[in-house]
Amino acid sequence: MRNTGKTDQHFFCCSAEIDAAVQELLKFKVDYKTVTGQDYKAGCPPTNIIPNSNGPAVEDGDDQVDPWNVSTTSAKGVDYDKLIVRFGSSKIDQELIDRIGRITGQTPHRFLRRGVFFSHRDMQQVLDAYESKKSFFLYTGRGPSSEAMHVGHLIPFIFTKWLQDVFDVPLVIQLTDDEKYLWKDLTQEECYRFAVENAKDIIACGFDVNKTFIFSDLDYMGMSPSFYRNVVKIQKHVTFNQVKGIFGFTDSDCIGKISFPAIQAAPSFSSSFPQIFNDRKDLQCLIPCAIDQDPYFRMTRDVAPRISYPKPALMHSTFFPALQGAQTKMSASDPNSSIFLTDTPKQIKNKINKHAFSGGKDTIEEHRKYGGNPDVDVSFMYLTFFLEDDCQLQKIRQDYTSGALLTGELKKCLIETLQPMIATHQERRKQVTDELVKQFMTPRKLEFNF
Amino acid sequence: MRNTGKTDQHFFCCSAEIDAAVQELLKFKVDYKTVTGQDYKAGCPPTNIIPNSNGPAVEDGDDQVDPWNVSTTSAKGVDYDKLIVRFGSSKIDQELIDRIGRITGQTPHRFLRRGVFFSHRDMQQVLDAYESKKSFFLYTGRGPSSEAMHVGHLIPFIFTKWLQDVFDVPLVIQLTDDEKYLWKDLTQEECYRFAVENAKDIIACGFDVNKTFIFSDLDYMGMSPSFYRNVVKIQKHVTFNQVKGIFGFTDSDCIGKISFPAIQAAPSFSSSFPQIFNDRKDLQCLIPCAIDQDPYFRMTRDVAPRISYPKPALMHSTFFPALQGAQTKMSASDPNSSIFLTDTPKQIKNKINKHAFSGGKDTIEEHRKYGGNPDVDVSFMYLTFFLEDDCQLQKIRQDYTSGALLTGELKKCLIETLQPMIATHQERRKQVTDELVKQFMTPRKLEFNF
Repeated sequence: MRNTGKTDQHFFCCSAEIDAAVQELLKFKVDYKTVTGQDYKAGCPPTNIIPNSNGPAVEDGDDQVDPWNVSTTSAKGVDYDKLIVRFGSSKIDQELIDRIGRITGQTPHRFLRRGVFFSHRDMQQVLDAYESKKSFFLYTGRGPSSEAMHVGHLIPFIFTKWLQDVFDVPLVIQLTDDEKYLWKDLTQEECYRFAVENAKDIIACGFDVNKTFIFSDLDYMGMSPSFYRNVVKIQKHVTFNQVKGIFGFTDSDCIGKISFPAIQAAPSFSSSFPQIFNDRKDLQCLIPCAIDQDPYFRMTRDVAPRISYPKPALMHSTFFPALQGAQTKMSASDPNSSIFLTDTPKQIKNKINKHAFSGGKDTIEEHRKYGGNPDVDVSFMYLTFFLEDDCQLQKIRQDYTSGALLTGELKKCLIETLQPMIATHQERRKQVTDELVKQFMTPRKLEFNF
Repeated sequence: MRNTGKTDQHFFCCSAEIDAAVQELLKFKVDYKTVTGQDYKAGCPPTNIIPNSNGPAVEDGDDQVDPWNVSTTSAKGVDYDKLIVRFGSSKIDQELIDRIGRITGQTPHRFLRRGVFFSHRDMQQVLDAYESKKSFFLYTGRGPSSEAMHVGHLIPFIFTKWLQDVFDVPLVIQLTDDEKYLWKDLTQEECYRFAVENAKDIIACGFDVNKTFIFSDLDYMGMSPSFYRNVVKIQKHVTFNQVKGIFGFTDSDCIGKISFPAIQAAPSFSSSFPQIFNDRKDLQCLIPCAIDQDPYFRMTRDVAPRISYPKPALMHSTFFPALQGAQTKMSASDPNSSIFLTDTPKQIKNKINKHAFSGGKDTIEEHRKYGGNPDVDVSFMYLTFFLEDDCQLQKIRQDYTSGALLTGELKKCLIETLQPMIATHQERRKQVTDELVKQFMTPRKLEFNF
């Protein structure tokens, strides 16, 4: 019997069911405590544990955020301050940003300065260790559900590249082609091909082949006994009740989905890559990812101490809005929902002019008089992601708000930012040979001595 | 809500639960049909689908038979004819035994002549194909839960060796060290060590290194992308509802147990071993195993056509009785429950004399007068497994039944059969070098061209 949020008295309806229901509730309470670290109180279940039909592991008001669904009814997008409270993570505040700047001697990345990476877990601990000359490693990933990647998909990779540059640490990138096979109506061959194609776009972000290992699950699981050993270790320490609570799986889900979370968890542990870390099990991992991936790593952090591994630290990003507005995450299957990495300059121009949701007024006269709203304007949002110059961005905000800058002018500014960026990406991607992809995807020692 | 065998009316007790219960029942019916191929009828659920707390997937009268529990209250042991009906398999009858003899030109093995291997699935199909020069391959295995193996553990290997000899086909032997890690309070290192130690006893049965591949799951999964790809393929096509029905898993079981059945299923498909079968996907598999492993392969046979692979054929053996009597399967953890492969001649003698349950009468006078009962006598049962000579066995049965043969004399006969057999095994095992084990356990082409 699923917990339906009803009070206990409902259970006592027909004697035969009482025992089963009470047993189920007791189990639920134990799992609840395991997942949340708190005792369960009847009547006020926190939203991030209620089992739900493959649906929202987290739901509050109208925001829904989990690995498969992100939606909100607010034009400004998801309320991220609320998410921090709900997920129990910490805000990336000015003090932390300043500390990263001090330690690395570099201007913090614009994604930090502008709150794109807004939440973290144990980042202070990573920095403490780093200051005492203890290294760490980076882990991020992508689910290769199609060949097409859009600019939003680059966010974690652009940021991870910067982290790697300023901290000079190893990086592993997981391509979950097995996950996409399990969740989508795709063959393994298709998912694997998407993984290799996506790897080319990732490599085009500028990663150093001597410091970076990219792997497809379908390949690496069958190439590394250490990786599989960690997967099984994690699978022994997570129950169906727990994944039901965290991910909303149901009894009708296939056993592949049910056990998959362990596969996304395993790269968080350095012993999954003995060739890189010389069999060391104690290196901490830092995972930059979009906030919707946090449920996987809440689970991972719960398991870690029980299998004597360090908990991974995390840095969470906001979602990249669809051209149509911040209410939804972009979809790789809708070509008009975003700018794709394969778009021509003309397509970029047309898409932005035609589809980018505007915060401007209906007529030039009104706009000049009342000004536009940059907080709901998708072109302005995109500029916060991709325009490097803080002063210029600030001026655009002011002029758009005052009405001095028209929507067409704002869009032109975005078009002129994205066109060369995408063109450069395409140029770089062309340089990525099959040989180079193979090098990145071969299990090997990197340029670090452990 | 678990199906408790109650009638539908019980569901309609308090309105809030009705929806969930009805939904659950509908799902159950769909899964029921998937597993059994029949429509579910309320009130008369067949016993082999009723979900149960990690318990009997099959229960009838007092016999309980599943991969983790085998018990009966009958001194003669489990009622195997009933099992055939319940499992929906076919009896290995005289006609089939004769056909095997005809095709191979060999006297059928004593395990066939005496009903030790008593049940099968699709064996006629394997023989039809073999007669048209289409090859097949053999797959059997063992769960390495300890270093100690007893004579009962040899049954499938002795028979598989014979099948390999008379049919001249490739053989793969799976050591499920990952399963033992998931189910037992053991470390991965222990389970892996047991796998390698058990491999030595298996090799000592006389397998040909040029025709046999032995693998530990913990190793092979990390050495073969093809194996993992098949595991994921199977995991996509089996739901939690199904494994709950077949194996009795509950929501409190770890996700490793829940997804494990796919790992025992995968070696049934030739594409899991591209190095042996040259990437061929169409070779049929024949699995000799104890009947308690059948649930894994019922699931496998259900999945096979849905992933375009041939269904594996099976030959099922009865259980080897404990020295104390046929009511239970032997336990590797109780040294007095069986004859171990490491026992000295003296230990063999003492164990049989002291612990082997006797079907004889209390006094010599009574025994001479009324005779003994070979059907419940463990020493006689053991002789049916290990004494090759049919005439001698028949004579022992007659003499014991008539009272001409006393219990002590029967036991002496068994002792004299087992002592040289175990000594020979120990001698052979000593010859098994680490180098040879490594050869058997290295993924490689065998002496067959596909």
